[in-house]
Amino acid sequence: MAQGEFDYDLFVIGGGSGGVRAARRTAALGKRVAIAEEYRYGGTCVIRGCVPKKLFVYASQFSDGFEDAAGYGWTVGERSFDWPTLIAAKDREIDRLEGIYRRNLERAGTEILESRAVIDGSHRVRLLASDTVVTAERILIAAGGRANPFATLPGAEHCITSNEAFHLERLPRSIVILGGGYIAVEFANIFCGLGVEVTLVYRGAEILQGFDDDIRAALHEAMTKRGIAIRCEDTITAVERSAEGRLRATLKSGDALDADQVMLAVGRMPNTLNLGCEKAGVELDEKGAVRVDDFSKTTSDHVWAIGDITNRVQLTPVAIHEAMCFVDTVFLDRPTKPDHDTVPTAVFSHPEIGTAGLTEAEAAKRFGDLDIYKASFKPMKHTLTGRDETMMVKIVVDAASRRVLGTHILGPDAGELAQVLGICVKAGLTKEDFDRTMAVHPTAAEELVTMYEPSTRVRGGAVVDG
Amino acid sequence: MAQGEFDYDLFVIGGGSGGVRAARRTAALGKRVAIAEEYRYGGTCVIRGCVPKKLFVYASQFSDGFEDAAGYGWTVGERSFDWPTLIAAKDREIDRLEGIYRRNLERAGTEILESRAVIDGSHRVRLLASDTVVTAERILIAAGGRANPFATLPGAEHCITSNEAFHLERLPRSIVILGGGYIAVEFANIFCGLGVEVTLVYRGAEILQGFDDDIRAALHEAMTKRGIAIRCEDTITAVERSAEGRLRATLKSGDALDADQVMLAVGRMPNTLNLGCEKAGVELDEKGAVRVDDFSKTTSDHVWAIGDITNRVQLTPVAIHEAMCFVDTVFLDRPTKPDHDTVPTAVFSHPEIGTAGLTEAEAAKRFGDLDIYKASFKPMKHTLTGRDETMMVKIVVDAASRRVLGTHILGPDAGELAQVLGICVKAGLTKEDFDRTMAVHPTAAEELVTMYEPSTRVRGGAVVDG
Repeated sequence: MAQGEFDYDLFVIGGGSGGVRAARRTAALGKRVAIAEEYRYGGTCVIRGCVPKKLFVYASQFSDGFEDAAGYGWTVGERSFDWPTLIAAKDREIDRLEGIYRRNLERAGTEILESRAVIDGSHRVRLLASDTVVTAERILIAAGGRANPFATLPGAEHCITSNEAFHLERLPRSIVILGGGYIAVEFANIFCGLGVEVTLVYRGAEILQGFDDDIRAALHEAMTKRGIAIRCEDTITAVERSAEGRLRATLKSGDALDADQVMLAVGRMPNTLNLGCEKAGVELDEKGAVRVDDFSKTTSDHVWAIGDITNRVQLTPVAIHEAMCFVDTVFLDRPTKPDHDTVPTAVFSHPEIGTAGLTEAEAAKRFGDLDIYKASFKPMKHTLTGRDETMMVKIVVDAASRRVLGTHILGPDAGELAQVLGICVKAGLTKEDFDRTMAVHPTAAEELVTMYEPSTRVRGGAVVDG
Repeated sequence: MAQGEFDYDLFVIGGGSGGVRAARRTAALGKRVAIAEEYRYGGTCVIRGCVPKKLFVYASQFSDGFEDAAGYGWTVGERSFDWPTLIAAKDREIDRLEGIYRRNLERAGTEILESRAVIDGSHRVRLLASDTVVTAERILIAAGGRANPFATLPGAEHCITSNEAFHLERLPRSIVILGGGYIAVEFANIFCGLGVEVTLVYRGAEILQGFDDDIRAALHEAMTKRGIAIRCEDTITAVERSAEGRLRATLKSGDALDADQVMLAVGRMPNTLNLGCEKAGVELDEKGAVRVDDFSKTTSDHVWAIGDITNRVQLTPVAIHEAMCFVDTVFLDRPTKPDHDTVPTAVFSHPEIGTAGLTEAEAAKRFGDLDIYKASFKPMKHTLTGRDETMMVKIVVDAASRRVLGTHILGPDAGELAQVLGICVKAGLTKEDFDRTMAVHPTAAEELVTMYEPSTRVRGGAVVDG
C-alpha cells in the first residue's frame, strides 16, 4: 500500500504516557502521526495518577516532620493545613506538565487532536468532536483505563474514586476507603497524614495482595499504629446519605461506618467501552482489555495496543516501554517484545514499600529451596524521635544458585531503593555479589549487604526453620 | 608455642568498630581475648564520628521541612532550636550504643579493659591504668585515628575540631571551618541548617578532592545557594581571640573573618604516638600509620593492625571488613585479603552525595574511552516548594566493554542509593543491565535507567563532545 493512500502513517488513540511516547518517536522518524485525546494530555499518570498522588504523599508527610523535630531540639509552633492551597498547587504543576507533553508532541511534528477518537474500521478512526473520519495505515490503541465505579453497589453515586479525590472541595474529617490494592493503601496513608480519620475496608485477608506477606503484615501493623482502622475480610454492601449530608457505609459484617466521604478503590477497568474495537476485528478479553500478542499487536492486522488498556502490567514505565518496543517493531524493523519480567515497583504508603523480583511465596512455588534474609530495625532517624516505626529489609535467595530472586523493603526511600535493586535482580546477581559490597555507613540500605545468616530456610516449598 | 604460655590468645588495642568486631568474633571461637580502650567503647564511629554526625544531619534538615511545607498548603508557626536538647539526646543515644558494644563483647566472652594499652614487645602489652604487663600470642592494633589538631597554626588552641563540635555548650552564631574534605563539608551543612552563619575556607581549588568533578561543582553551587560562604584557594594563617571573646581568623589572602568558633577539619592522623610500635618491630609509614601487608599483618610476626591506624580506607565498614578478614586469616585458617576495591561512600552534605566506583577523571585515566550519562533535574518534591535545588545523577561507562565504572549522585537519599549502586558496580554490570531494568515511577532513581544517550563522550582520555 502506498503511503499516500492514508491520511496518516500512524493514528494514536489516547494521550497518556504510552500513546504520547509512541506518537513522538514515530513522528521523529518522519512519519505522519496524529494523536487524539478526549480529556487532557498526560493520561492517568500525569492527570489523575502517579504525579498528583506523589504530590499528595509529600504533603501528607510534613506532619511527621513537625512531630519528629522535637526529639532533635526543635520547638514548632501551631501548624495548620489548607487543602485548597494544595489542590491549587497540584493543579498548577499538572498544567505545567501537560504543557510539556503537548510541546514535546508538537516539536516532534505530531498532529494533536482534542477529541474522543473511536475505531471505525481497520484503517479508519472517527473523531467525535468533529464527527469526521480519518484514515491511517496503522492504529495504536493507548486509551488506558479508569477507576472501576462499582456501579452495582447501592449508593455508589454517593461515593468518590481516586479521580474525585484529587478535586475534593474540602478535606473530609473522616473517610472510608473500600479496597486493599495500592491505590486504596496510598490514599489511606495520604488522608491519615493530613489529619483525616481513615477506615480501610477490604474483602481479602490482608491488604496488598501480590506483595510479599511479611511486608504486607508489617505495613498493616504500621498503618494501624498510625491510627488507620483496617477491616479485612469485610466489604461495603450499601452507602446512604444521611439528612446531615454525611455518609453511612453498611458493611457485610453488619457494622455501619459514618464518614464524610466514601472512596471506592476496587480496581481499574480498560477504556474499551464504545471504542469500536469490533469494527476492526480487535478482540477483547473477558475483562474487556484489548487482546495483544507478544509484540503488542491486536487480532487486527493494522491495529496495535499498549498500556493499561491491554491489562498486562498497569504501570507508566511499562506503557512507555511497550511504546518504544512498538516503534522498534513496526517502524524500525527491529521486532522487539516488551519485557514484563521483574518489574520493580513501589507503593507510596507510609512507610513506603519497594519491591523487585519474586515474593517469598512465589519463589517458594517456583524454586522450592530458598534462603531468606530478613532484618527489622528502627530507622536511625527515629532513635531520637521516639517514633515507633520499624523498617524491614528482606532478600529472597535461591538456595541452589544463590541468585537473589527478590528484594522487599518497607521503610523510608523504599521506592528509590527498589529502582536500583531492580537492576541487581534483573541482572541475576547472587547473594554473594551483595555480600562482597562494602557497606555505606550509616545508611538503612547497608542492611542489604550485611545479612550474613539466613533468618529462614525454605526447603521443598515449606519453611523448615524460622 | 603452647597456648598456656600467654595470658591471651589475642589482645586487641582499641575499642572501635574494627577492634570490637575482631575481639568478638575471635572470642566466639573459644579463644582467650582481651580488648583495651582508653576512652569509650565504640570508637570514632559511635562516639565522635558517623553516628553523632548523622544525628546532627537529621537535626539540621528539619528547617528545610518547615519552609517546604508552605508550598503544600501547610502554615507552620514560630519554631526555635535548642542546641543543648540536641546534645543531650545525642549523648543518650551514644550511651545506649556504647552499652550495646560492651554487652556484645561480654556475651562473646571478651575481657574488657578500661585502660590505655601500649605495646611492650612482640607479645607484651602494657596497661597504663594499672601499670601492668600482660602477654598475648597475637596483638591486634586497632587504635584508630584522631583529628589533626594543626598545632603549628598560630592560635590553634582557640579552635575546635570535630571532637569538640559534638560537645559545644552553645550553638555559635557564626563559624569558620577550615578544610575541604567530607568532615568540613558535612559540618558546614549541619551548622548552616541549624541557622549558623558558615564560612568554609579551603586551600584547594574545589571542595571534596577525590570525588567526581561535576558533583563537586554542583555541591559547591548548592551550598553557596543555601548561604554558606566558600573560599577556595585560601587558608587560615592565624587565629586570635578578641577582647569580646570572639575569634578572628586571618587568611592567607589578607582578609580576616570574625566568628564565634573556628573549626579545623584538616585531615586525620593515625593514633600511633607513644603506642610503642618500635618495641615490637612494628614499622610505621611516613605519615605515622602502621605499615601492613595485604593480610593486615604488620612488620612484626605476631602483630596485626586494622582500621584507621593503617590509613588504607578510613571508613567504619572497611575496618569491620578488615577485622573479619583478620579473623578468617589468623584464627580460621582461611587467608583472606581485605578487598578495598570499589568502596561506595556517602557524604552527608545537603544535598547528599553518594558515589560508587570511579570518577570520570579516574576512569578517563585508566580506560581512555568513556561514555558519560548525566542528568540534572529538580527533585519532584521541590516542584511545589519552589526550592531552587538540583539533583544530579551521573554514570561513567567504559565505552569498549559498556561496563559501568562509576555512579555519582547528588541529591536526596544519595547515600542510600550509593549502597545499592555499589552492588551493581562491584558486580561489573553494564549500562545495558541498567537500561533493561524497568523504571519505578515517580522516583528520582529512575533517571539511572532512563538515560539513553551519552551526554558526553571521552576518547583517549579527553572529552570529545559535551
